[in-house]
Amino acid sequence: MPDSHSAILLISCPDQKGLVSAVTRFIFEQGGNIVQLDQHVDTEASAFFMRVEWDMAGFSLERDAIGTAFELTIARRFGMTWTLQFSDAVPRMALFVSKQSHCLYDILGRVQSGEWRVHIPLLISNPESLRPVAESFGIPFHVFKITGENKAEQEAAQIALLKQHNVDLVVLARYMQIVTGQLIREFHNRIINIHHSFLPAFAGAKPYHAAYARGVKLIGATSHYVTEELDAGPIIAQNVLAVNHRDNVTDLVRKGQDVEKLVLAEAVWAHINSRVLVYNNKTVVF
Amino acid sequence: MPDSHSAILLISCPDQKGLVSAVTRFIFEQGGNIVQLDQHVDTEASAFFMRVEWDMAGFSLERDAIGTAFELTIARRFGMTWTLQFSDAVPRMALFVSKQSHCLYDILGRVQSGEWRVHIPLLISNPESLRPVAESFGIPFHVFKITGENKAEQEAAQIALLKQHNVDLVVLARYMQIVTGQLIREFHNRIINIHHSFLPAFAGAKPYHAAYARGVKLIGATSHYVTEELDAGPIIAQNVLAVNHRDNVTDLVRKGQDVEKLVLAEAVWAHINSRVLVYNNKTVVF
Amino acid sequence: MPDSHSAILLISCPDQKGLVSAVTRFIFEQGGNIVQLDQHVDTEASAFFMRVEWDMAGFSLERDAIGTAFELTIARRFGMTWTLQFSDAVPRMALFVSKQSHCLYDILGRVQSGEWRVHIPLLISNPESLRPVAESFGIPFHVFKITGENKAEQEAAQIALLKQHNVDLVVLARYMQIVTGQLIREFHNRIINIHHSFLPAFAGAKPYHAAYARGVKLIGATSHYVTEELDAGPIIAQNVLAVNHRDNVTDLVRKGQDVEKLVLAEAVWAHINSRVLVYNNKTVVF
Amino acid sequence: MPDSHSAILLISCPDQKGLVSAVTRFIFEQGGNIVQLDQHVDTEASAFFMRVEWDMAGFSLERDAIGTAFELTIARRFGMTWTLQFSDAVPRMALFVSKQSHCLYDILGRVQSGEWRVHIPLLISNPESLRPVAESFGIPFHVFKITGENKAEQEAAQIALLKQHNVDLVVLARYMQIVTGQLIREFHNRIINIHHSFLPAFAGAKPYHAAYARGVKLIGATSHYVTEELDAGPIIAQNVLAVNHRDNVTDLVRKGQDVEKLVLAEAVWAHINSRVLVYNNKTVVF
Repeated sequence: MPDSHSAILLISCPDQKGLVSAVTRFIFEQGGNIVQLDQHVDTEASAFFMRVEWDMAGFSLERDAIGTAFELTIARRFGMTWTLQFSDAVPRMALFVSKQSHCLYDILGRVQSGEWRVHIPLLISNPESLRPVAESFGIPFHVFKITGENKAEQEAAQIALLKQHNVDLVVLARYMQIVTGQLIREFHNRIINIHHSFLPAFAGAKPYHAAYARGVKLIGATSHYVTEELDAGPIIAQNVLAVNHRDNVTDLVRKGQDVEKLVLAEAVWAHINSRVLVYNNKTVVF
Repeated sequence: MPDSHSAILLISCPDQKGLVSAVTRFIFEQGGNIVQLDQHVDTEASAFFMRVEWDMAGFSLERDAIGTAFELTIARRFGMTWTLQFSDAVPRMALFVSKQSHCLYDILGRVQSGEWRVHIPLLISNPESLRPVAESFGIPFHVFKITGENKAEQEAAQIALLKQHNVDLVVLARYMQIVTGQLIREFHNRIINIHHSFLPAFAGAKPYHAAYARGVKLIGATSHYVTEELDAGPIIAQNVLAVNHRDNVTDLVRKGQDVEKLVLAEAVWAHINSRVLVYNNKTVVF
Repeated sequence: MPDSHSAILLISCPDQKGLVSAVTRFIFEQGGNIVQLDQHVDTEASAFFMRVEWDMAGFSLERDAIGTAFELTIARRFGMTWTLQFSDAVPRMALFVSKQSHCLYDILGRVQSGEWRVHIPLLISNPESLRPVAESFGIPFHVFKITGENKAEQEAAQIALLKQHNVDLVVLARYMQIVTGQLIREFHNRIINIHHSFLPAFAGAKPYHAAYARGVKLIGATSHYVTEELDAGPIIAQNVLAVNHRDNVTDLVRKGQDVEKLVLAEAVWAHINSRVLVYNNKTVVF
Repeated sequence: MPDSHSAILLISCPDQKGLVSAVTRFIFEQGGNIVQLDQHVDTEASAFFMRVEWDMAGFSLERDAIGTAFELTIARRFGMTWTLQFSDAVPRMALFVSKQSHCLYDILGRVQSGEWRVHIPLLISNPESLRPVAESFGIPFHVFKITGENKAEQEAAQIALLKQHNVDLVVLARYMQIVTGQLIREFHNRIINIHHSFLPAFAGAKPYHAAYARGVKLIGATSHYVTEELDAGPIIAQNVLAVNHRDNVTDLVRKGQDVEKLVLAEAVWAHINSRVLVYNNKTVVF
């Protein structure tokens, strides 16, 4: 039976002549038809980035063999870092939540309607608040109460649980705890957070209060990979919404939720479709 | 000959019962028909703001008498601060510029085409760069070379020139000097600046470089009244534009210019139409 | 116990002098403090529109008496059409759905999280598809299979059911049947639809296919009150999203869903907060 | 002296395997370093599109020889249609105007400030209105009064003038005459118009009046190549702006001008940077 899915290579390496030619020739010579190719050169950093997706129908290499062949014939020669994904893979995504449900409902709706092809094996929360939501969607709900003393211990338990469920991606869907180094290192560039401001403005707690106090005419949201410095990781997506003097803090919170859920969804969509490369604490989103 | 123009009252005072009723009754009893009324209550600050515009056709008070009558019968009673403008007034606007011409061309085009009813008696600049633009539009161009030593002196000379020309409003159209206290106090809430970032992010010098380094997915511009704290005055208008990894600093500068000119124009338009009230370092833009 | 809620008057009438003065004086004299006032004059149509909201704390009239008093002392004199609402009322909203769930999830999430204070007594659908969603949210789900022959009969049964549940507002959340005159007249200006294009472009079936064929660089959504002419009712809210040559019809459908749900939510929010007035097949949205 | 500029190939052909590989190998083997590559496959139309830009420094072929070499070794084999441009070329652009000056000022400002590297050898107008603008910018201004009888004759004269000035691109900057077949055929896909609505809504005359009458909550502008069917050519860029019930037709006209000038500028920028391919009455804008 022919394989009707596609393969996706995400590549980065020092810029040099012949990169696109070499990669596309590799695909062509094995019988692959390129569906989409996007590349980017950061001339300042002399860095090359590429995403290429080709139809696996008629491709002469088995899935298992592609990586080795690419590494040996192309990647080594050019010093490439690369990942290979297939379009029919179903990523396993864990959601971390607290009390607010708007991002959670938005994500669960996208998954359950089939808009997103991901599997959500579990939800992790600090309070009990959203257990009914998890239950109505039939998803296991794990509460980890976190205090000043038990944080490291609880994160270790979270990591164990995530590994047990073979989780690929962690999404902090308005999770009101600061995630620390252990978890961040374990899921390097695989934890996506939504922050409720247009970073770098209003990092930290209570950004809508700060936005109100400053009298801005826009509020926004930023989705980024989590790094050890708070709200300072590589930005994947951002958007804003116009507000005015009539909007008090409650209005900003309410209106902001719509931006938060869309921006988080945009970032997760890019990640699960293998469209994001990280370098220099920035992202290339193909 | 009947007066076909309108009068505009901008009012602020402590919030209390009967404010709208008292103001609208005053207008009604003198035979005025309200064209537009907008009010705002900041419940946290217990502050009331109002803009009311009425048709002068059939209004029984002479223009000169309105202020006194309003002060004596209404404003004193409620402790109101107010200004009165007429829609046929032509504000006198001075532009401060440096080397970049995009905001200047945009404003001059709006004035010359009749979109804006303002008079521009002069341009003030530190370098000579934009003299040809001023000349092609027939506007006097005054150069004030500013050094560390002569700044206070040069600003004093600028103030004298602005006063001599009866300037109502100063617009810093990408003026690359920091304006200081003397000028700011003289034109309190009458100096509008355009800053090339979505404040409070990237205040200060080289915001596009900072935005590029941080890897934001939006760039923006902010128009605000100038106060003594740099880039921290009351925000009148803001907007943003999506950017991505392909945009280097040169692209950000180029794309940002379009946002800058529109945001500055939006702020100036609001000001010259008597739509802006300032309080608590914020604005109400009716 | 003092009434801490507010009352909202929505008023329209022929434009004339003294309207704002009369209404605000009525409120003031009964001890009401105006929280928000917005008015609009359509000079072409010589029509006046007003929304005024005041704090009921300390208001001397009982809720039941306000309408009669306002009608007798003010409304009759000026020929006003008006409605009176209280901010603590909980509107009863019926949702009509078909197969797509994005608007449904979005609305149910807003209601269940407490963002919207409405009650949803029932869902009406033509196919069975979304019954599981209704059940997981605990909302009765009624299927009305509609054919060419039974349409009038089924709509009559729908109307009976809506009345039995005292429904105030009908929201067509991507309902793929054309609603006809009987239901429209029964719920005049109380049926809100979401159409998946920026009307008047691409009215009728398959707007995303039409948008793709035309090669537009924007797709959009329009929320409007349903009238007997298809997709031609008064527009309440519209928005768009940038697309490009990479987006095929499937992408347009997927991306468009986010605009659809936000635009529909914006329109419903305006309606349930008594912010919409209809005239000349247009809306005033205060 | 080394050539520090880049070459740009725009290619379209039937989709088939090996296209990217063949083109990039051609560039690589002559010593070119690819700066930017973008490709698109319309699977429905089985059509392939590509834009590739490479650094001419170190490229072994002379500029004059590239086209022939590419045609003989690559293009013929795959049935490609292609154009070759160099980044240091300065396109010659004619502007057609009538009475409104906002697009004209915007374009002239971009050219004079150096934002755009184009040469404007002449302006063509039907009324005299904007002659002073042309003169203040030092650009020859040619008036062609057009009547029902002399249209064909006047267009022939315009074509002669455009050819005499070696014009590459014609921009209709709110030119209020309908351009006809002779001129359109002569400058196939090289005449860019700005229409003041979000097409396909409100094609034809007076779109702002129509938008006002329909009560839309958005107004927009569309830039497109001119074809013989009015306002139906391939769309290059579109954008919109939120409006509300307060905006009368005059407001729509004023606000719309800002969208018009930005959308037209975006389209012209894409064209002069060799980023636009046309097929099936649509555009690929790389």
